[in-house]
Amino acid sequence: MEKFGPVRVGLLGIGTIGRGTFEVLRRNREEITRRGGRSIVITRVADVDVERARAIVGDHAEVCGDGAEIVSDPDIDIVVELIGGYTVAKDLVLAAIANGKHVVTANKAMLAVHGNRIFAEASKQGVMVAFEAAVAGGIPIIKATREGLAANRIERVAGIINGTTNFILTEMRDKGLGFEEALAQAQALGYAEADPTFDVEGVDAAHKITLLASLAFGVPIQFDKCHVEGIRGLRNIDVRYAEELGYRIKLLGIAIHREAQPDGPAGIELRVHPTLVPARRLLANVEGAMNAVWVRGDAVGDTIYYGKGAGAEPTASAVIADLVDVARMLTVDPDNRVPHLAFQPEALVDVPILPIDQARSACYLRIPVADQPGVLARITGHLADAGISIDAALQKAAEDECQTDVILLTHVSDERRILSAIEAIEAMPTVLGPVVRIRREELG
Amino acid sequence: MEKFGPVRVGLLGIGTIGRGTFEVLRRNREEITRRGGRSIVITRVADVDVERARAIVGDHAEVCGDGAEIVSDPDIDIVVELIGGYTVAKDLVLAAIANGKHVVTANKAMLAVHGNRIFAEASKQGVMVAFEAAVAGGIPIIKATREGLAANRIERVAGIINGTTNFILTEMRDKGLGFEEALAQAQALGYAEADPTFDVEGVDAAHKITLLASLAFGVPIQFDKCHVEGIRGLRNIDVRYAEELGYRIKLLGIAIHREAQPDGPAGIELRVHPTLVPARRLLANVEGAMNAVWVRGDAVGDTIYYGKGAGAEPTASAVIADLVDVARMLTVDPDNRVPHLAFQPEALVDVPILPIDQARSACYLRIPVADQPGVLARITGHLADAGISIDAALQKAAEDECQTDVILLTHVSDERRILSAIEAIEAMPTVLGPVVRIRREELG
Repeated sequence: MEKFGPVRVGLLGIGTIGRGTFEVLRRNREEITRRGGRSIVITRVADVDVERARAIVGDHAEVCGDGAEIVSDPDIDIVVELIGGYTVAKDLVLAAIANGKHVVTANKAMLAVHGNRIFAEASKQGVMVAFEAAVAGGIPIIKATREGLAANRIERVAGIINGTTNFILTEMRDKGLGFEEALAQAQALGYAEADPTFDVEGVDAAHKITLLASLAFGVPIQFDKCHVEGIRGLRNIDVRYAEELGYRIKLLGIAIHREAQPDGPAGIELRVHPTLVPARRLLANVEGAMNAVWVRGDAVGDTIYYGKGAGAEPTASAVIADLVDVARMLTVDPDNRVPHLAFQPEALVDVPILPIDQARSACYLRIPVADQPGVLARITGHLADAGISIDAALQKAAEDECQTDVILLTHVSDERRILSAIEAIEAMPTVLGPVVRIRREELG
Repeated sequence: MEKFGPVRVGLLGIGTIGRGTFEVLRRNREEITRRGGRSIVITRVADVDVERARAIVGDHAEVCGDGAEIVSDPDIDIVVELIGGYTVAKDLVLAAIANGKHVVTANKAMLAVHGNRIFAEASKQGVMVAFEAAVAGGIPIIKATREGLAANRIERVAGIINGTTNFILTEMRDKGLGFEEALAQAQALGYAEADPTFDVEGVDAAHKITLLASLAFGVPIQFDKCHVEGIRGLRNIDVRYAEELGYRIKLLGIAIHREAQPDGPAGIELRVHPTLVPARRLLANVEGAMNAVWVRGDAVGDTIYYGKGAGAEPTASAVIADLVDVARMLTVDPDNRVPHLAFQPEALVDVPILPIDQARSACYLRIPVADQPGVLARITGHLADAGISIDAALQKAAEDECQTDVILLTHVSDERRILSAIEAIEAMPTVLGPVVRIRREELG
């Protein structure tokens, strides 16, 4: 299947996300190759902790302690920077670019502060610097904003783009905790770092909304002009009062393109602060460490993108999507950069579509029955005979006083079993009509 | 700015979506050119109703009655097919491909039935057939699945991908209507067609989930194997019982990749049917004619994409995103297909980031006051003096019995006004401490 050799990747930094990237690339190698048309392999890793790095990668990659070796290695096609921070990372990324390497990075801090220079150098060298993982983890929000909504004059972007603070705010609301208690909780569960400043002060969200604002409105990156307020001062009483008024408090990154008005100039609002959001909005219902970004365009209207904003594998998902993007660009005929059906035509597989009688679902059943003792026992007996267990039951008086509706939620079972159980139930003399069956999916 | 001439587009069919595409392309021409690096212009339109077409496009495009003229026109780079249906549309698309034209289409019915052949021909000719608009309107779900989640072994996809049925189900729940009444409502409001069969029987959703399943799992398109149940038989009583049990009923398109199990073979479940969804899930809260698609990947976990699934401009947003994709591929250096910051580097603009004192927000204010008559009147007086009106007010006894919390929600005002009002309020002798101000955004 592979017309070309593997794309060779050098990884700078193999902490949590680096390890996730290494592991997902290996685990899904076949799937990724079927999409990108050639395999993507991490051949070299640099990390200050060489021993730990070796323990992770085994024989599968060469490990060194100095990233400079990797960014100048002529055998490396793409450099993945997962070191973080502003200094070493920036120097290595600029060196990689100068050496004509494509770069994939998850480093929002570096891009928010040095992005203009980095992108200018990359354009000069004709290389890509891809950064899907820098904003909202696994959610493909950069691709959506930059490509999916390209028809639109984007009017506003607002996002829950820091999982730590969203977790803290969710705890404050659900458990009535104060900020400090909720923070301690988040730290105990690994959702907040020992020094949580960047998260709770809103700096991390500000890095991200600054990048999104540039993508949305076509302006240079201007992190220093972002207004930033965190959640440290927030008191539980305000969370409660907001709730009474029909609102929830979320830390939002907000970017608004304001047209000139009689009472104000045209410009861009760029701010991060705790925000009351109506409880009925989807964004208000994004709980725990999840992220979501709302983008409004003049043509598309309101769109929302939801998913995990952090964590090893969700972030790795974004890093690897960027790698596939670069690999496709390096490889396939430009007329067919992305295959029509996502996978290379010769890589489509023949996994069968199962007939419906092999489908598996939980079910809702409504059974009209005579109001007599023992009916429910016989119905559940038929289900038990078919190997189907019951999740919940409800018995309701029907309009006709001799009739009752029995409503059952069953556990997951296959279609054949549920149909044979329904047949047996409908044959009961105390069952007064056809059983209504609606499938049920937990989606979680 | 333009190094290249415009990309010339021939439009087949200028009904609702065609008109939207024409209008959005003209309205956002500058924005789109800044992104794509060259302008995209509809130069020819074919429609059976030549007069109506002329009335829409005026002097801006040449109109004819025969699409065959356009698909063979050597001056046309991309053909946009918005005729719909299986026959004329298919013949014209195949002719366009045979003539080496790239194609953009919103036609899910055609692709669900003839997609394998169309994509095979396109691959042979080295042209793109882009179809973002075919699934979930303006939501960039094709791009997300095909590119954004390329790292993942996708496990399941479930979506509300038919706005008509979601509108009907929302009406049945909110207003207690029966199916027929809710359908009549949807028809009266333009959410359902006079012949609603394709929507209410689930066929339209089946076209879309069939396409999504191929993108997610890398299998050929197999619409004939999709199990389809619509909502026509659904009774309001089941909507109510589901609600009592903590569920909502949605018409879902579902595609699941099943690994082989002791009790069942490996394969793909592909089905459309009414489904009970737990009320707390985001998908259960997608109301009216909105669409949302949930995709679970092994690395990224759960992601959701939400937006308008139909309508002239949302669909045009997707059509034009595809046009920009093709235009970028036709034009720019392949090393820089998508600009780092979405817009071509030379097209970044200098719209200023406004200082925070020029920001505009609604606010939540908590004001600790002495429990005396007249305090609220004086506070609202200060706000009125600053030109700020009030949306809601709440007065709460504080722990200290001499103190009360006054909570106000203000309308949108600029930062300077609210800060000067707060200053005046804090100077009141009956105000016992600093005013807590949290901004509020309606996000709607």
